[in-house]
Amino acid sequence: MADIVNFKERPSETLKVGEGFNLKDADPDATPGYNGDKSDGEVLLAELDDNLALLQEQLFAESRLGGTKRILLILQAMDTAGKGGIVSHVMGAMNPQGVQMKSFKAPTPEEKSYDFLWRIEKEAPAAGMVGVFDRSHYEDVLIHRVHHWADPKELERRYTAINEFESRQAAAGTKIVKVMLHISRDEQKERLLARLDDPSKLWKYSSNDIKERAFWNDYMDAYQKAFEKTATEAVPWYVVPANKKWYARIAVQQLMLDALEGLRLQWPVPDIDVAMERELVERS
Amino acid sequence: MADIVNFKERPSETLKVGEGFNLKDADPDATPGYNGDKSDGEVLLAELDDNLALLQEQLFAESRLGGTKRILLILQAMDTAGKGGIVSHVMGAMNPQGVQMKSFKAPTPEEKSYDFLWRIEKEAPAAGMVGVFDRSHYEDVLIHRVHHWADPKELERRYTAINEFESRQAAAGTKIVKVMLHISRDEQKERLLARLDDPSKLWKYSSNDIKERAFWNDYMDAYQKAFEKTATEAVPWYVVPANKKWYARIAVQQLMLDALEGLRLQWPVPDIDVAMERELVERS
Repeated sequence: MADIVNFKERPSETLKVGEGFNLKDADPDATPGYNGDKSDGEVLLAELDDNLALLQEQLFAESRLGGTKRILLILQAMDTAGKGGIVSHVMGAMNPQGVQMKSFKAPTPEEKSYDFLWRIEKEAPAAGMVGVFDRSHYEDVLIHRVHHWADPKELERRYTAINEFESRQAAAGTKIVKVMLHISRDEQKERLLARLDDPSKLWKYSSNDIKERAFWNDYMDAYQKAFEKTATEAVPWYVVPANKKWYARIAVQQLMLDALEGLRLQWPVPDIDVAMERELVERS
Repeated sequence: MADIVNFKERPSETLKVGEGFNLKDADPDATPGYNGDKSDGEVLLAELDDNLALLQEQLFAESRLGGTKRILLILQAMDTAGKGGIVSHVMGAMNPQGVQMKSFKAPTPEEKSYDFLWRIEKEAPAAGMVGVFDRSHYEDVLIHRVHHWADPKELERRYTAINEFESRQAAAGTKIVKVMLHISRDEQKERLLARLDDPSKLWKYSSNDIKERAFWNDYMDAYQKAFEKTATEAVPWYVVPANKKWYARIAVQQLMLDALEGLRLQWPVPDIDVAMERELVERS
């Protein structure tokens, strides 16, 4: 059996966007807090699957007996950064019954007719669930800022609205984990080319990706701004270097484990007389 | 590496409810079509996980380029029969992004104010998705029949409504797989006792389970009636012996594989000039 190489420092510390953080200085090739290589990372990922599944089952179990805790993972990234891989390789370890997955696409005309948080609120995870947002309300301050679909005053309104929304969710029992998967512009080129070369990946390719790619620096500025405006003590941002897919996966797995462990979950005990119930079952 | 013991006969044939089927004659301990034992079954289950994940990804991929195919697995069973285990051990192999899971509880007052199919229609799987119903509209002809919450005329109306609903879904591209997990009354007793003895399972125990257990034979009659009324050529029922959990899991896995293979899925090819796109990416 392979030795397990664990993180030296927790991603919840090393990857957290703090005071003075600058996205320009974050290296997408780095593997902060982890000294192992790709194969070590793959072993670690598989090894911790069961932990993740167990904690998620406890979260779900608590809610069946009245618990209100829940988790929300928000994934933001440039195209090809690996959101899909995080969902299948990290969240895939959990019981589908307890995962509430939502991919936010361009809003429909109906969605556009409401405030931008209208469609988000409806997808907030229920008690006991692990919600996953593949893109989110942050699109409304990212792509909207890049293409000037919202003016500066409206963007300010949205940052404020996001903070109020997220702190309300947090106060209602939702642990929110906000992740930006950070790849380099060169890495994106490689991955777009790989999609074009592989029949099993070609369906993921969109000509639109090149158009957005042209705005790379504007997107990085928009992310930087979003971090400055919405990284709070209660709901921090994590920037996960993602040029190495294996690292991004173990880092997000650790963030989820930390979030779940922070909830101090236990198997809930129903208010029944076990001995009496046992007798009733025996006689039934 | 362990040898793989495959099914001799396909569950889609051996477990299908056909003309003259009688639930009373179905043995919940049997392992139809499979000569292996528990450990063989566990190896097979793990071995076919990747197949299932691949087919599901192709289904999802097709929908991104306009495909309308989808799958709906309907799980019905007496308490403790193992619906949850099917979801985590079979459906868990799929990418959470492509699984649309819905557990139907007792209807809310709002849901009750509509026709019984109102809440069901809203949860029908979207194109490219694998929907899973943990309980379903069949509760409205099972528990409602057992407790006489619906009179015979209303039950007839519901059988007809169910058939129309399901054949419409099928015509719109949904492959529906209806499964009853079949355990024995004695096996249920063992499993209820096991829940009472295990702190990690105690939360699943409900005093109400004993109450429903008293109506066992009425439930079996209600299932038999539901099969007679709603097992159609396009949307058949499968009765899966479930006293052996490992067998139920590989059987449902096979049913899902058959359903997916029957869709003749392929990696979709977008309508783009790949060579030109490659050049655009290279220059970007």
